[in-house]
Parts: sequence; C-alpha cells; structure tokens
Amino acid sequence: MRNIRMTVSYDGTSYSGFQTQPIKNTVQDVLEGALLSLTGETIKITSSGRTDAGVHSRGQVINFHTASKIPVHRWCLALNSLLPPDIVVSNAQEVADTFHARRSAVQKTYRYTIRCGRHPDLFKRHYEFHHPTPLNTDAMQAGLQWLLGRHDFTSFCSVRSTKLSNIRTILKARLECEPLDPLLNSYAIHIYVTGNGFLYNMVRIIVGTLLQVGEGKRTSDSIKEILEAQNRAKAGPTAMAHGLTLWEVVYDQATN
Amino acid sequence: MRNIRMTVSYDGTSYSGFQTQPIKNTVQDVLEGALLSLTGETIKITSSGRTDAGVHSRGQVINFHTASKIPVHRWCLALNSLLPPDIVVSNAQEVADTFHARRSAVQKTYRYTIRCGRHPDLFKRHYEFHHPTPLNTDAMQAGLQWLLGRHDFTSFCSVRSTKLSNIRTILKARLECEPLDPLLNSYAIHIYVTGNGFLYNMVRIIVGTLLQVGEGKRTSDSIKEILEAQNRAKAGPTAMAHGLTLWEVVYDQATN
Repeated sequence: MRNIRMTVSYDGTSYSGFQTQPIKNTVQDVLEGALLSLTGETIKITSSGRTDAGVHSRGQVINFHTASKIPVHRWCLALNSLLPPDIVVSNAQEVADTFHARRSAVQKTYRYTIRCGRHPDLFKRHYEFHHPTPLNTDAMQAGLQWLLGRHDFTSFCSVRSTKLSNIRTILKARLECEPLDPLLNSYAIHIYVTGNGFLYNMVRIIVGTLLQVGEGKRTSDSIKEILEAQNRAKAGPTAMAHGLTLWEVVYDQATN
Repeated sequence: MRNIRMTVSYDGTSYSGFQTQPIKNTVQDVLEGALLSLTGETIKITSSGRTDAGVHSRGQVINFHTASKIPVHRWCLALNSLLPPDIVVSNAQEVADTFHARRSAVQKTYRYTIRCGRHPDLFKRHYEFHHPTPLNTDAMQAGLQWLLGRHDFTSFCSVRSTKLSNIRTILKARLECEPLDPLLNSYAIHIYVTGNGFLYNMVRIIVGTLLQVGEGKRTSDSIKEILEAQNRAKAGPTAMAHGLTLWEVVYDQATN
C-alpha cells in the first residue's frame, strides 16, 4: 500500500464541516466519494483535524493508503476533475508509511478576517466577517499577545469539547491591517494564530473576545484574566464561522 | 419628484443579467422589488447599461425618480437591509433632474480577469476565468493596443446586437499581470478596457480573441485585420461571462 499526502483547499460555505457525519454533506464525504470513483477502493482519509461547518481551508492536509498505481503527478488533476469546484486538491506526494496527517502535524495556522466598513465587500462575503463600525486594532493586537505561550485554554474552548487536556501552546499570533477604501474608511483585519494544536471553537472564541476588545467593551488585559479564569463563560461569544480559514499545516521534514 | 443616483455592486453568478426580463431573476427586478418595499412606489430604475447573465459589477450606476422623503444618507443602509447579500448599493446622491444613468455616462470601464495556473483559486472561482496553461501576455498586450481609438467594432459584436451603429471609441486598454504563486507559476491577468460605449458581448469577444493571441493561435497584428474585416466570424469565441466585471462608469461633473 502507498501512503499519499495532499493539500486540500475548500470553500466551506456549502458543507457541514470537514469530518464525515451521518447523512451530512461534508468535505471528507465528497473527497472519499471522488477517491472511490477514481480508484474503485473504499478509502478512509486522515486529515490534520476537523474544521467546523462554514469554515474554509487553504492548507488542509490529508493522507490515505491505497493500492492504486496512479503515478503521483496524476492524482491532483484526476481528482479535481471528479470534485466539485469548491474543493481543490494540490501537492500530491507519496510519503513514508509513518506519515499521519494529524499525528505528524507540528503546527497549524488559522486566519480569521474581519472587514470593517459601512458596507461588506460582496465578492468576499463568504470569507470575511463584516463589522460595520471601526475597531481599535491596537487594543486587539495587545490583547492577542496575552495568548502567546503555553496555557490552559479552557476559557477559549467550547463546553462541548471532549478533549482530556485543554493545554495548548500558541507559537505565533499577529494582526494585520489591510487598508481597502480610504474614502469609505474600510479595512480588513487578518488575525493569524499559529499553535501546536487547537481546541473546539478556540480560534472563533478568541476572535469573538478580541472583537469586544476592539469595540471597547473589554480591555486588552482582560484576555489575561479570562485565560486565568479557565471558564468559558468569562470569554466573549464564538465569532461566526465564515471568517475563518485553516491557513497552513506544518510537518517535520522527517515525517514527510 | 427627486432624482436619486446610486452605485450598485453585484455578484452576477445567480442572476439572468441586469435588465428586467419576463419571468427571470435579474438584478433590476430585485432592486425594484426592494425599492417598492421601501417606498411603496413602483419605481422604474435606469442603469448605465445592461450586463449579461453571470457578469458582475463593482461600479454599475443607476438613477430613479421618487416622491419619497427618505433623507439621502439613509437610502443605502435601508435598501441594503432589504437586498440579498449578493447586491449592495452605495454612494446615494440626489442629482439634477437631467441626470440619466445611461445617457449622461461619458465613459465606462470593464475588467476581465484570467487566472493562469494549474489549479483555479477556488475562492475566486466565480470571478476569474481559469486557464490552466501559461499565456503570452506580451502578445496579448500588443494585440490589445490595436483596439485603441475610434473603430467599427462589428467584428467584436454579437450578431444578435440590434444597435444601428457599431462605431465606438476605446479610450484606454491595458493588461495587468498580478503574480500569485511563483511555486505554481500562477498569475492573474486583468484586462481593463475603457470606452465611450460598448456593443453586445464586445469585451467578451475581445478577450476571447486575445486568449487565442496569448495561446499563439493568432498574432497580435491579427487584431488589426479582424477590426478591418467588420465580420464577427473573423474574431475568436466569446469569453465566459464570469470573468467580466463592470468596473466603473464616469459622468460629466455637470450632470452629477
């Protein structure tokens, strides 16, 4: 059996998330359906991790084992011709048998985009959260820095999580402000968060809380207090899914 | 009666074009429906010109006459709350009674976007035409220059056109190459064409012909010969609608 690794981009708008669910339209179901058509095999794919309904991906990574003899450079075009236009695979590689898209992942980056301005950009309406009034991005940036390092993220984790430990390490966190239309005073805020792993709804709760910091409803330093409280009720709401994109997953070269 | 002018952006993907059609879902129908809800008046809007099914707009301009007393700064938010998310109005102004969105227009710019690269960018799949192999953009740029000035554009006009004269003036024409992913050798080609008016399918036939120039199937100078032939059959195919956006409409300040 060969072990094939691929990058998967998708527009999550029409899907009930990445991971297979009974009687649900998920990205995994569609990918496995295309693999069945292509190879005749019932293939179970492994991903770097699930994404919620409505969340997008630019850099999801999957792997799967197959007896198929299709040359590695043919996989992407063959699969893309079977996939709907809102899922695209790229970078197919044959990898060592030990490579596992979730367990071998070393770090993962998510990006959340907020568009500030009177009107949304309709061409990006499925990929940006629209906030009609200005936000204090300096305060948001300052709040974001409290998350760096190793912490118990219970306050930033859905109560529906079933993980045994809520301790994760945030390796990088930055906020980029992209000026759009100076006449309309509109700009996009991109929040990039890189960690060794993420809890259920973690990035969306972080962003929902930072939005309140940007609106002046909380101070930047409140992020530190929320972390210490280890209580989901202390943080802000879960930001809407459509602003979130799984940006990149990084692996050790040894497992590639 | 007041004369109100607005800019309308729309994602043309789900519409049968701009202009009202019997039993069809058009942008004009949706706008007039929202105006009826807002004002209680049956308002007929005038646009700078129709756009085809699937074509988008960033800068369509409309005007309409109304007895409504709604203050001008309230129109956009009020209408946008009644419009679907793929149509957004902005820049409402009260203008002189003589202003007419089509007749007062001095020049109009369209943008056509082609994405060259192995895979489409799925997040822009409704707004870019995907061309999987590289194009000779220098040759396309050279071909485009033949269109500048006043010409009979019969060769670049759908045979279904009902216009009396096919003479138009192209004021500006440029091709911009936007590098995207150097590893994948992918780039976007934006073709901007500004004219005093356009014929039915004119920009799409220009682009369909330039694509053949970029593929090496025609020379740059063939554009001159096609113009002179005044024969639609001499030009290339009509490029797909979804790459085209009505970019901007310019008016004399006097008519504003």
